[in-house]
Amino acid sequence: MNYDEESIKLHKELQGKLSVKVDAKIETREDLSVVYTPGVAAVCKEIEKNPEKIYELSSVGKTIAVISNGTAVLGLGNIGARAGYPVMEGKAALFKSLGGVNTHPICIDITDIDKFIDFVKKISINYSGINLEDIKAPECFIIEKRLDEELAIPVFHDDQHGTAIVVYAGLKNALKIVGKEFSECKIVVSGAGSAGIAIAKLLLHEKPKELLLVDSKGILNNKRTFGPLEYDKKEISQNTVEDGNLKYAIKNADIFIGVSKPNLLTKEDVQTMAKDSIIFAMSNPSPEISVNEAKSGGAKIVANGRSDCINQVNNLLAFPGLFAGVIKTRKKITHEMKVKTAEVIASMIDKKSLSEGIILPNPLDKRVHKAVEEAISKM
Amino acid sequence: MNYDEESIKLHKELQGKLSVKVDAKIETREDLSVVYTPGVAAVCKEIEKNPEKIYELSSVGKTIAVISNGTAVLGLGNIGARAGYPVMEGKAALFKSLGGVNTHPICIDITDIDKFIDFVKKISINYSGINLEDIKAPECFIIEKRLDEELAIPVFHDDQHGTAIVVYAGLKNALKIVGKEFSECKIVVSGAGSAGIAIAKLLLHEKPKELLLVDSKGILNNKRTFGPLEYDKKEISQNTVEDGNLKYAIKNADIFIGVSKPNLLTKEDVQTMAKDSIIFAMSNPSPEISVNEAKSGGAKIVANGRSDCINQVNNLLAFPGLFAGVIKTRKKITHEMKVKTAEVIASMIDKKSLSEGIILPNPLDKRVHKAVEEAISKM
Repeated sequence: MNYDEESIKLHKELQGKLSVKVDAKIETREDLSVVYTPGVAAVCKEIEKNPEKIYELSSVGKTIAVISNGTAVLGLGNIGARAGYPVMEGKAALFKSLGGVNTHPICIDITDIDKFIDFVKKISINYSGINLEDIKAPECFIIEKRLDEELAIPVFHDDQHGTAIVVYAGLKNALKIVGKEFSECKIVVSGAGSAGIAIAKLLLHEKPKELLLVDSKGILNNKRTFGPLEYDKKEISQNTVEDGNLKYAIKNADIFIGVSKPNLLTKEDVQTMAKDSIIFAMSNPSPEISVNEAKSGGAKIVANGRSDCINQVNNLLAFPGLFAGVIKTRKKITHEMKVKTAEVIASMIDKKSLSEGIILPNPLDKRVHKAVEEAISKM
Repeated sequence: MNYDEESIKLHKELQGKLSVKVDAKIETREDLSVVYTPGVAAVCKEIEKNPEKIYELSSVGKTIAVISNGTAVLGLGNIGARAGYPVMEGKAALFKSLGGVNTHPICIDITDIDKFIDFVKKISINYSGINLEDIKAPECFIIEKRLDEELAIPVFHDDQHGTAIVVYAGLKNALKIVGKEFSECKIVVSGAGSAGIAIAKLLLHEKPKELLLVDSKGILNNKRTFGPLEYDKKEISQNTVEDGNLKYAIKNADIFIGVSKPNLLTKEDVQTMAKDSIIFAMSNPSPEISVNEAKSGGAKIVANGRSDCINQVNNLLAFPGLFAGVIKTRKKITHEMKVKTAEVIASMIDKKSLSEGIILPNPLDKRVHKAVEEAISKM
């Protein structure tokens, strides 16, 4: 199938992927008087008295927004707010189809950090959660951090945490197969964009033996200087003294996680890794190393980002259930929730099925999202 | 039926009135590749090359926004953005149910004119039209005018024009019954809020013999001084020399249109009007004069804003079909379209049915909205 052609055809035929559904019956004058005036005035007054009632008495309580400025869309880069819209609409469709979460796509042509934050804060009263999407680093870190601090509703940048959660879920199962503990592992993360940094942060929080984050200039360490917005890179690097390139970093590593560039890793590099190495090569569409080359270098478990390979690390696994859960409880998303989401995703592969080629569930399996939702809604 | 109680019950049960519907099937990995990545990248690239394609290839082309800042909600006044949300959600539900127009409710807590305009412009790339709602005068005039000038998509403030269109439609049929021409009529409009001014502007454009706009201080004329934002009031008043109160203005009037306050008009006032007078007393829920009192004063045709009386002037008649029409053609809304909408609405009452008690169709009759849509989409 030619996905490009089919996708353009489908988008033209359906004029996008989303429409509005009216849940109330509007057929008689009595219906009108209940759904709209004069009855609706009573609902307004309830919310005027107690603003929190908006979540109970309106669709604000069951709807979130996917918001982007189009500065880092898929692998296409800074294509702008309009051109990014079909991705946000697709994301909204997935939120609803997989997690039952009503979602509006919103694209805005604002790249200034303060103005972007101001816009999102203004529109936030219409929603129960904000999923930030396809915003370039390092702006995305500052935007998410500030919005999370300043808003009472959950804020989540999926390109960071969605990927990090699913990587962690996959690692959990991979480690079961090779019989290693997380705390014994040396991990190398290649790529210091939004996904790479979020993966490093999440995994460091869970205390591996060692974690090295590597970008095109080499290992990020405490001798590096960082740009004025690169707080996160700096924080991750401050306890690292190791200096060298990826080839140096990878020696004796138990785990390689790539969110960087195609063909960065060779069979020979993999041969220098520890026994039973685990390779998540997620550069998309071309991975850091092919499955075959990684295996021939001695890797025990290989995962990547492609839907046509085994062990696809797909962040579709995390966000639908996670948001479905927090919408129910009206809580913010915590580190503990991210770890719990990873645990639940990992647990969906039972002992009998768990194997080198099956470490993650199918994201189209709605039981996964339901299980995540239930676990999160109890936190 | 206790509409207040029923409305709160319904809003709680359904958690509002709207949800999201996914139009595309998302069941297999192939579906994912077409609806989302990698296929969707081709759709993004099409829009990047030609931004206008967003209307053809995404739901932007079939979706509008109802936007309010909650400063003049129903008869409740300035209850704020959050408390206004159920009304905007209701309006969105009506847009979809009656006109098939997908609509998102958006409430924002911005009262500053420039900042409000800036926000709407930023969000406008996600929509094919903007329906402004429940924004207080005179800000609403400036906001609508500037947005209409500065945006390429249709912008419409329903509290102004929706009411004006339906009043004009009702007048057209009422004049057929009394056998008068519009150009022979003296019209008095009571109330110089957003609806009153819009009615006066629309009717003046159609050249009645005389039109007097009256507020609590009396007839608006060229001796009045106006506030710095009251361009519209000033414009309407500039050719009027008459000076006096409502009792003076109403003498020999053929038509009274009230969008003001309860019980402003007495039977005796109506007696001073011309023969076969027409009274649209639309203050809601209590009209400027009751149907019985107006009739006993000699009025031939009486209409008001209540759903439990004859001849309800309901702006639900105009906006669904009008927006459904312009969304098809991607044109701005013109004066000619407003007049055409009024003509189509009036024409839905056939000669046989037309009578003193039936001058306007039922807004729940979807044929009305379809007929408006078809007429507007040909303009």
